Amino acid sequence: MENRIRISLDAMGGDNAPEEIVNGAINALNLRNDIEVILVGCEDKIRASLKAKSYDNNRISIRNTTEVIETSEHPVKALRTKKDSSMVVGLKMVREKEADAFVSAGNSGAVLAGGMLLVGRVKGVERPPFAPLIPTEKGVSILLDCGANLDPKPISMVQFAQMGSVYMEKVVGIPNPRVAIVNVGAEEEKGNKKIQDAIELLKQCDNINFIGNIESREILKGGADVIVTDAFTGNVILKLIEGVASTLMSEIKKGLMSTLRSKIGALLIKPALKKTLVKFDATEYGGAPVLGLKGLVVKTHGNATRKEISNAILQCVTFQEQRITEIIEDMMRPAEEVKSDE
Amino acid sequence: MENRIRISLDAMGGDNAPEEIVNGAINALNLRNDIEVILVGCEDKIRASLKAKSYDNNRISIRNTTEVIETSEHPVKALRTKKDSSMVVGLKMVREKEADAFVSAGNSGAVLAGGMLLVGRVKGVERPPFAPLIPTEKGVSILLDCGANLDPKPISMVQFAQMGSVYMEKVVGIPNPRVAIVNVGAEEEKGNKKIQDAIELLKQCDNINFIGNIESREILKGGADVIVTDAFTGNVILKLIEGVASTLMSEIKKGLMSTLRSKIGALLIKPALKKTLVKFDATEYGGAPVLGLKGLVVKTHGNATRKEISNAILQCVTFQEQRITEIIEDMMRPAEEVKSDE
Repeated sequence: MENRIRISLDAMGGDNAPEEIVNGAINALNLRNDIEVILVGCEDKIRASLKAKSYDNNRISIRNTTEVIETSEHPVKALRTKKDSSMVVGLKMVREKEADAFVSAGNSGAVLAGGMLLVGRVKGVERPPFAPLIPTEKGVSILLDCGANLDPKPISMVQFAQMGSVYMEKVVGIPNPRVAIVNVGAEEEKGNKKIQDAIELLKQCDNINFIGNIESREILKGGADVIVTDAFTGNVILKLIEGVASTLMSEIKKGLMSTLRSKIGALLIKPALKKTLVKFDATEYGGAPVLGLKGLVVKTHGNATRKEISNAILQCVTFQEQRITEIIEDMMRPAEEVKSDE
Repeated sequence: MENRIRISLDAMGGDNAPEEIVNGAINALNLRNDIEVILVGCEDKIRASLKAKSYDNNRISIRNTTEVIETSEHPVKALRTKKDSSMVVGLKMVREKEADAFVSAGNSGAVLAGGMLLVGRVKGVERPPFAPLIPTEKGVSILLDCGANLDPKPISMVQFAQMGSVYMEKVVGIPNPRVAIVNVGAEEEKGNKKIQDAIELLKQCDNINFIGNIESREILKGGADVIVTDAFTGNVILKLIEGVASTLMSEIKKGLMSTLRSKIGALLIKPALKKTLVKFDATEYGGAPVLGLKGLVVKTHGNATRKEISNAILQCVTFQEQRITEIIEDMMRPAEEVKSDE
């Protein structure tokens, strides 16, 4: 019992709640014996979703809540007024050590702000970054920040690099991950003053493998494992990848349906194409962690289905097993404090 | 003779110079009778490329130069030291009214800086933006700035909006083009102080059709005709579109070649797919203009072939016919000056 990893799961968040959230939980429980899920939300609705399904009921419990923070609501205001929402209650469980991690497909801003306000930052972390994983030709990279830090200080960007490196090495399993900063050219002197300052600090940082600038065209080619940027640029990158992929796929599909010949061809290529595209399917990678908090908080896509929810839960297990929070705590302790401990 | 539009064409710029540059010029001359091209570069090489080709030699001439600015060179330094380069001589021809427009596939930084230094800004234009056209689901949009203004003032962004609107309306033929600013959300209060200030000014500007924010995922969907942003974000967007498209296409191709069944399918879909992808072929749209200069300067892709060069030349004709420079001059004149003229 003691070694089980406890996930508080926002059963009311996202487009497919609670049905697919509950299904994701059951899926994860079936894959691993050392997980326990607390479904946070409207008990009646959760019971209805659980009904007639087979699962280990020793490892699923329900924490009833009466309110829901909608995707359209102002994050901080909603967190303040809806004290009995699945989001607020689920996050507080992490703070109170009733859960090791919180997973939600709900309001992104509320997950981020709630992580900061209700779970709290690790001492020394300036700004906890929101860090989605991006599928690339070579595997997967982490992009940080995609959260609320539109104008981060250069020192924050160094912390993004450090925390992202720990995540990629320990959770994703990439040894000595390559760190790069998004810039408008490969040459070192590119970018504005702030980027120049960040580059200087990144070069001096001895616990990361900084390889220099990355131009955006190299991101999906897998040009770096840890991609550091401000949240404005991070948001633009994340949404643009989504937009370009969606437009290209929809135009290709239209093209394939345009003639009889191409329709037959489309049937023939379907299995191979599907296999290719699975590689770029973000749901494979679970959710985006908020790094640098006192406990793990993970945000999945708003339209997440059972597979993504299940993967996000499994991701929390690795995070917990690898003691990422403790590693980040050690990393962020100022040198003098470390010294006086010894 | 008097009504001919004269293009000074950098015969030495880009990966395929001079052969494809010369071919592009011949192509454009064959399509229209009212163009005259001055090929600027090494006369011997240009003559070798022209040899045995059929063209109207009354409308092609050569301006011999002895130096070439390479793509890898520092733009401003190269412009200063290589006075007899095709770039410097070609740009100066626009300043001296020996040509109406300059087209180059060479060093982007040098085209931009050279446009500013050698052709000169229209009075009142803070920063001439580099403004590529982006193919979208609905047609084409203009993205500005993608040049050197990494941290433009809000007032510069308003000028980008104004000049981009003129271009889209007069050259591309979109009436009342929709202007949007790149931001991290649809809501008006998103973004940092600088974006907030720019939004305020854009709302007050009465000669543009400002529709608010655009999130990057809507860009290829054709969410706006004129997309305003700083050059850092513009660069990230431009290169990321290129990168995502290239990665997706190469992965799809790999997938199609993976089984016999998919190979047969690939043959069947090829014509339809080709037709679809032509829509997203940037070479269709010629080059990216630098707006707000005293004459037209157009940069094509470094790997431009004859079609793109030819389209870039035709684009200059429309620009000239529509008197874009004059419209921008009128637009940028301060109100009091306009008054005293009347």
